[in-house]
Amino acid sequence: MLELRKYYPPDFTEERFAGAPDARLEAAPFDGVAPELYHALSIFPEYFKINGQWLLAEESRMDCVPVLRGGKIEVVEFRNLKAGEPVVTGRTEDASEGIYVYANGFRERKDAQDVFAFRTNRSRETAFSRDYDELYDILRYEHDHGKIVWVMGPAFAFDHDARKAMAKLIEAGYVHAVLAGNALATHDLEASYLGTALGQDIYSQKQMPLGHYNHLDLLNRVRYYGSIPAFLKGEKIRDGIIYSCEKCGVPYVLGGSIRDDGPLPPVFGNVYEAQDAMRNEVRSATTVICMATMLHTIATGNMTPSYRVLPDGTVRQVYFYCVDIAEFVVNKLADRGSLSAKGVVTNVQDFICNIAKGLGL
Amino acid sequence: MLELRKYYPPDFTEERFAGAPDARLEAAPFDGVAPELYHALSIFPEYFKINGQWLLAEESRMDCVPVLRGGKIEVVEFRNLKAGEPVVTGRTEDASEGIYVYANGFRERKDAQDVFAFRTNRSRETAFSRDYDELYDILRYEHDHGKIVWVMGPAFAFDHDARKAMAKLIEAGYVHAVLAGNALATHDLEASYLGTALGQDIYSQKQMPLGHYNHLDLLNRVRYYGSIPAFLKGEKIRDGIIYSCEKCGVPYVLGGSIRDDGPLPPVFGNVYEAQDAMRNEVRSATTVICMATMLHTIATGNMTPSYRVLPDGTVRQVYFYCVDIAEFVVNKLADRGSLSAKGVVTNVQDFICNIAKGLGL
Amino acid sequence: MLELRKYYPPDFTEERFAGAPDARLEAAPFDGVAPELYHALSIFPEYFKINGQWLLAEESRMDCVPVLRGGKIEVVEFRNLKAGEPVVTGRTEDASEGIYVYANGFRERKDAQDVFAFRTNRSRETAFSRDYDELYDILRYEHDHGKIVWVMGPAFAFDHDARKAMAKLIEAGYVHAVLAGNALATHDLEASYLGTALGQDIYSQKQMPLGHYNHLDLLNRVRYYGSIPAFLKGEKIRDGIIYSCEKCGVPYVLGGSIRDDGPLPPVFGNVYEAQDAMRNEVRSATTVICMATMLHTIATGNMTPSYRVLPDGTVRQVYFYCVDIAEFVVNKLADRGSLSAKGVVTNVQDFICNIAKGLGL
Amino acid sequence: MLELRKYYPPDFTEERFAGAPDARLEAAPFDGVAPELYHALSIFPEYFKINGQWLLAEESRMDCVPVLRGGKIEVVEFRNLKAGEPVVTGRTEDASEGIYVYANGFRERKDAQDVFAFRTNRSRETAFSRDYDELYDILRYEHDHGKIVWVMGPAFAFDHDARKAMAKLIEAGYVHAVLAGNALATHDLEASYLGTALGQDIYSQKQMPLGHYNHLDLLNRVRYYGSIPAFLKGEKIRDGIIYSCEKCGVPYVLGGSIRDDGPLPPVFGNVYEAQDAMRNEVRSATTVICMATMLHTIATGNMTPSYRVLPDGTVRQVYFYCVDIAEFVVNKLADRGSLSAKGVVTNVQDFICNIAKGLGL
Repeated sequence: MLELRKYYPPDFTEERFAGAPDARLEAAPFDGVAPELYHALSIFPEYFKINGQWLLAEESRMDCVPVLRGGKIEVVEFRNLKAGEPVVTGRTEDASEGIYVYANGFRERKDAQDVFAFRTNRSRETAFSRDYDELYDILRYEHDHGKIVWVMGPAFAFDHDARKAMAKLIEAGYVHAVLAGNALATHDLEASYLGTALGQDIYSQKQMPLGHYNHLDLLNRVRYYGSIPAFLKGEKIRDGIIYSCEKCGVPYVLGGSIRDDGPLPPVFGNVYEAQDAMRNEVRSATTVICMATMLHTIATGNMTPSYRVLPDGTVRQVYFYCVDIAEFVVNKLADRGSLSAKGVVTNVQDFICNIAKGLGL
Repeated sequence: MLELRKYYPPDFTEERFAGAPDARLEAAPFDGVAPELYHALSIFPEYFKINGQWLLAEESRMDCVPVLRGGKIEVVEFRNLKAGEPVVTGRTEDASEGIYVYANGFRERKDAQDVFAFRTNRSRETAFSRDYDELYDILRYEHDHGKIVWVMGPAFAFDHDARKAMAKLIEAGYVHAVLAGNALATHDLEASYLGTALGQDIYSQKQMPLGHYNHLDLLNRVRYYGSIPAFLKGEKIRDGIIYSCEKCGVPYVLGGSIRDDGPLPPVFGNVYEAQDAMRNEVRSATTVICMATMLHTIATGNMTPSYRVLPDGTVRQVYFYCVDIAEFVVNKLADRGSLSAKGVVTNVQDFICNIAKGLGL
Repeated sequence: MLELRKYYPPDFTEERFAGAPDARLEAAPFDGVAPELYHALSIFPEYFKINGQWLLAEESRMDCVPVLRGGKIEVVEFRNLKAGEPVVTGRTEDASEGIYVYANGFRERKDAQDVFAFRTNRSRETAFSRDYDELYDILRYEHDHGKIVWVMGPAFAFDHDARKAMAKLIEAGYVHAVLAGNALATHDLEASYLGTALGQDIYSQKQMPLGHYNHLDLLNRVRYYGSIPAFLKGEKIRDGIIYSCEKCGVPYVLGGSIRDDGPLPPVFGNVYEAQDAMRNEVRSATTVICMATMLHTIATGNMTPSYRVLPDGTVRQVYFYCVDIAEFVVNKLADRGSLSAKGVVTNVQDFICNIAKGLGL
Repeated sequence: MLELRKYYPPDFTEERFAGAPDARLEAAPFDGVAPELYHALSIFPEYFKINGQWLLAEESRMDCVPVLRGGKIEVVEFRNLKAGEPVVTGRTEDASEGIYVYANGFRERKDAQDVFAFRTNRSRETAFSRDYDELYDILRYEHDHGKIVWVMGPAFAFDHDARKAMAKLIEAGYVHAVLAGNALATHDLEASYLGTALGQDIYSQKQMPLGHYNHLDLLNRVRYYGSIPAFLKGEKIRDGIIYSCEKCGVPYVLGGSIRDDGPLPPVFGNVYEAQDAMRNEVRSATTVICMATMLHTIATGNMTPSYRVLPDGTVRQVYFYCVDIAEFVVNKLADRGSLSAKGVVTNVQDFICNIAKGLGL
C-alpha cells in the first residue's frame, strides 16, 4: 500500500523561531485591497508568528494573503478581503519577520536524492510506466483515505471508451468531486441523450444529419427541464459522466466561460463565484487530476497547495497531476516546484482508459 | 486598394422565394428556452419570410435563434430569450419553409475557382506571404472604412517588441476595439508599471528579485486606485497596450475567467455579461484578428458572422483571422467554411511585429 | 472476424478500355533519368494497356515510374532506372491513353456513404474508440492471413511498459517486420543491456551516475561483438524489442541517418539501400503501423500502396496507420486519400500498451 | 559592436594540474571500436595531459573519443577509429586522471549572474525581443569575423518571402555554409524552376493542374543535366536559395535520408559521409542557426562544440540557435547546458523575414 511521505514540522524551539518577532499585521485599506507589502502565500506550508505562537495556514492558496480571523490564519483572495482586516505583511520567508515558508517538510525515509528527479521537464518521450503504477497506488489509497478531485476539459467526453471509463471510476468510488465547465457537461449529456458529441457519433465518428443541432437541442432541453436532475429523470438517461455523478452523489462544479452556449442551469455565470465553489472542493482534496484543459488546470493549480491538514491535525502531501497532449500545458504546471506535481503527456482518452484498466475496472 | 467581394442578394422574385410560405413562428415556452424545432443561425446571411417579405437577419450570430422583434429579425442567445417571444422554427435552408441560408452571396468578379483554395488546412508549412500582403491591404482599407477588432490571449504582452508594435497599431488607428481577459491587461500593465511580466523583464528576460510579487502588486495597486484610468494617471504610466487604448479612446472588453487573480476593476466577473459586451463590439466589426488564445478565439468566432450590413444597407464580408502557434487552434476555426476565415500558424510576437513593419509603423 | 472490402476489378470489356490505345513507352535517356512526360504512380491500383492487354502494376509505389520488364509492369524508383528501359509516358488517368488509375475499386457491401467519414482531419479530440476496436480486429486477422509491418521512431523504447508490450506483440506473432533506425535499436539494446535509455532508468526515470556513457557503451559493445546476435548471446540478453525480433526470426531493417552515433553493425549507411530494404518488406505488407516518427512514417508511407496482389491473384486493401502525439505528423499522411490510412493522435506508449491489452496479451 | 565573452584558460601551474598524471592511452581493439573505459567528449573545452603537457582538443565533438594523432588530440567518431590507435581512457573530468573538462572558461566581464537566466526552458511565451537584437549583433559581427552555418529543414523553401529573405542573406554575405537535405534543395529548385513547391504556388498557394508532377519533374530534370550547376545554367534559373549559394560560392551539404525522392545529384547517399561533410563545415563555424528540422538540428548540434580555436590560437565561443515552432524540438537542444545555445519558438518563415529586415536587407 501507498506510504505517504512523513511531514516533519519545524522545531519551533529553535532560536530562529523562538527568538523571532511576531508577524506584522496591517489593515486592508479598502474592500478587496491588501495593505502595501502584504505577504502572498506559496504552495508550501507557511507559518506565521502571532502572539508568540507559530500558526500554520491550514487551507492555503498560492498568491493569496494571510488574514487573521478568529485567532486563525485564513488564506484569502484579494477580492474577498474586507476593509480593516488584519493582513500579514512582510516578504521574507526565513522566520526573521515572523513568517516561515517551509518548503521541505515532507521527506522520504531513505531515498532523499530522489527528490530532484521530478524537477525535470516532461515530454512525449518521458517514460511514464512508473507514474502510472504510482498513480494506481495513490488512487487505491485515496479511495478509502482521501479525496480525489478530477478536473476535465471541454472535449473529454468526445470518446465512447473514455467516457465509459470515467463513469466506471465514478461508480467505483474513485471520484469525490468533478470540476469542469459548461462544455464538458454539455458534450457528455449530448452523448447521454443523443449518442453524439457536437453531432458526431461518439463511437462510429459518423456525423448525424442535422447533427449540429444536437448540441443546442441538448442545452435547450435541459434548460426546459430547469435542472440536470430533472432532465436526467425526464429523459430517462442511464449513462455518462454527469449521470454517474448524480447517481453517486458526487458533487460537480461547472464554471462558466465566455465561449459558453446555453448555459446549463447549474453553471456559475460569475467566475469568481465559480472559483469559490471550486476552492470549496479543493480545500479538502488530497489528490487532484487535471485532464486536457489549460484553463481549468491553471485555475485549479492556483488554488491547490502542496499539503493538507487532516481533521486529526496531521499534515499530509497533496498529489497533483496534469495530463495533456501538449508539453506546453504540462510544463506550465511543472514550475510549481512541488514534489507531488507531475505531468503526463498523452491523449486523455488513453490515459483514462489505462487508469480504469489499471484499477481492474 | 483592397476591393471587397461584391454581395449579390438573392433574387426574391424567383418562384422558390415568391412561392414560399411564411416562416413559422412559435413562442418561447419560458425565459431562456426556445420552442422545439427552433431554427439556429449559421455564419452566413439568412433570410426569413415574414408577412410575405424576406427579411435579412442583420446582426447574426451562429447557433442563436431568430426572433421577431419590432418587425425585424433579431438574433438572440438562448439565455436572452424571453418567454412568449416569437421564434422562427424549421430546420431547412432552401426557402421551402420560409428560411433561406445564403452561403454564396459574395463573389469574386473573375477568379471564381479561387474559392476552394482557402478550404484546406493550415500548418506551419503553409506559405503565408500572400496572407500577410492581403492583411496589410485589409488593414489599410479598414483603417478608414471599417472596424478592426483585436482579440488577445493572456501572454500576448510578454514580449517587449510585440507590446510596442501593438501600441503603435493602436496609436496609428488600426485598432478599434480590443477583446481580452484579466490576464492580458494585468501582464501589460505590470510591464507598464514595473517593466516585467510575471516578474521577468520583458526585454532582458531577467527574473527580478521577489519578482513573483510584481503581478500581484500591480493588481493590488490598480484595485487601490479603483480604476485603470486612475491608476494610469496616478502612476504616470506612459506606455503599453492598455495605456494606448485609454489614450486613443479605444474600447476594451475584459472578460473574466476562473483562473483570474485580482481581478482588475473593469473585468466582467459574469461571463455572459462579458459575452454581451464582446458581441456589442463585434456587431459592427468588419475585420477580427484573434491572437494566441483558444478561449477568446472560439468565443469571438462564435459571435462573428461572415457578413455585416453597413449603415447604407450594403452587405459586406467580414474578415476573420486566427493567429496561433498551434495548428490545433488555427484549424478549430477553419471549419467555419467561410471564405474570409484564415489561419496563420506562427508565434504572435513575430506576427504583430511583421504587421507593424508591413504597415510602415 | 474482419471482413475485407471486396475489390471489383474494372470491366475491361467496356468500350473506354477495349477501344483505348496501348500505353506509350519511351526509353529512359540515361541511368536514373526518366523520359519526358513519364507517368508517375499513385497509391491506387493502376492498369496499363500493353499489347492490347490491361496489366495491373502489382507492386506499386507512389511517385515512381512504370517500366515494362519481362512482360510485366514493374514500379521503379527514378534512381533505379536503367538507360534504355521502356517507361510508360502520359499523364492522364482515364484509360484514354492506355493508363487507368482505379481509385474506387474497394467497396463496402452496404454502407457506402461511410467512405467519406474518414477523410476528415484527426486531432486530439477525435473519438478513437472505434479505431482501436477495428485495429484489434485487423491485427487478429492479419496474425494468420497477412503481414504486419511496424515502423518505430527513435524514442519508442524509452518506456518500460511500452517496450514490454511491443516485445509481447512480437512473441505472440503480431509483428512480421520492423522498420526503424539506428537510434531505436540502440535505445532498446541499452535498455536490455543496462536497464536505461540515454542513461535514465526506463522504469524509475532515475538518471544513473555517468549514465550518459551508457548509450555509447552499448554501441561500442555491439560493435566490439561485430553483430547484434553475437552481442545478444555474448551478453546473455533476455528481453527487449530487438531481442524478441531475433528470437522469433522477425526481420528488422535499420536505416541510417545523419544523426546516428555508432552505428550498430546492421544499419544501412546508404539510405537508398535502406529504402530498397524497407520496400522489400513493404512489398508484401498488408498492414503497416507507424509510431512516433515523422521521418520513417513519410518514408514508409511513400512506398506503401493502398492495395496488395496476393499470391492467388486477389487484390486486397492495405491498412496504414500513423500514430503520433502531433496532429501535424498524423495529418501529413492523411492527405493520401486512401480509405485505409488512419491517424491516431496519442502518446505511442499508451497506444502500444492499449493494443497489447486489447489483444489479451 | 558585439563583444565576445573572453576565454580564461585554466592555470596549468596550479597543483591539481601540475601534479596530475598523464592521461591513460589505450589502443583501439578493432577498426571502429574504442577500448573499454574510453573517454567521450562533451561540448566544452577539454584538456588532456600528454607527456606532461596539457593539450586542448581543438576541434571537438560531443560523444566522440580523443585520439592522439601526430602529437595532437583529435576528436574521432567511433566509426572512424582505426585499430591500434591510442585513445584516451578515463571518465573523470577534474584533472585527477589527466583529463580536464572546462565548463566555465567563458566569462562575462561584469554581469556574472546573467549566466543562469539562459538555462530555463523556452516556450511560445518567452520574450524573444532581446534574442533577436543579440542575433542581429552576432550576424553583423560574424559577417566579417566568423563563419555562419545555416541548417534548414525540408519545408523551409515553401514560402515566397522566406525564400527571398534567405537568398538576400546569402547574397549579402551572412551565409557561409548551408546544411540541408535532398527535400529542401528539391523544394527550393522546384520554386526556381516552376514557381511552386509540391505543385502549390509559393505565393498564391494555388495548386497547379498536375502540380504533383512538379516535384518529380524538377528532380528528373536536374538528374538529366547531371548536376545542379548545369541545371541552373541550362534552365536559366535566376533566383532561390540554392541558386544564390551557387552564385556566391557558398558551399552546401545535402545529406540523404530514407524519405528522399530522386535524389538530386550532389546528395550524399551515405549518411556517414554526409556527417563527415557536415562536420567539415562545422569545424570552422562560429555561429550555427538551425531552422525547422529536428533531424538536421540534432545531427548538427551533436557535432558542434561550444568553442572554436581560431587560427591565432584564441579560443572563442560558438553561438548555436535552434528555431522551431515546436517547443519539443527547441528544448531537445536546450539541454546542452551551454551559454550560447538558444532556442526561438516560432514559424521560421517569420523568423527569417525578421532577420533580413533587422539587418536592413
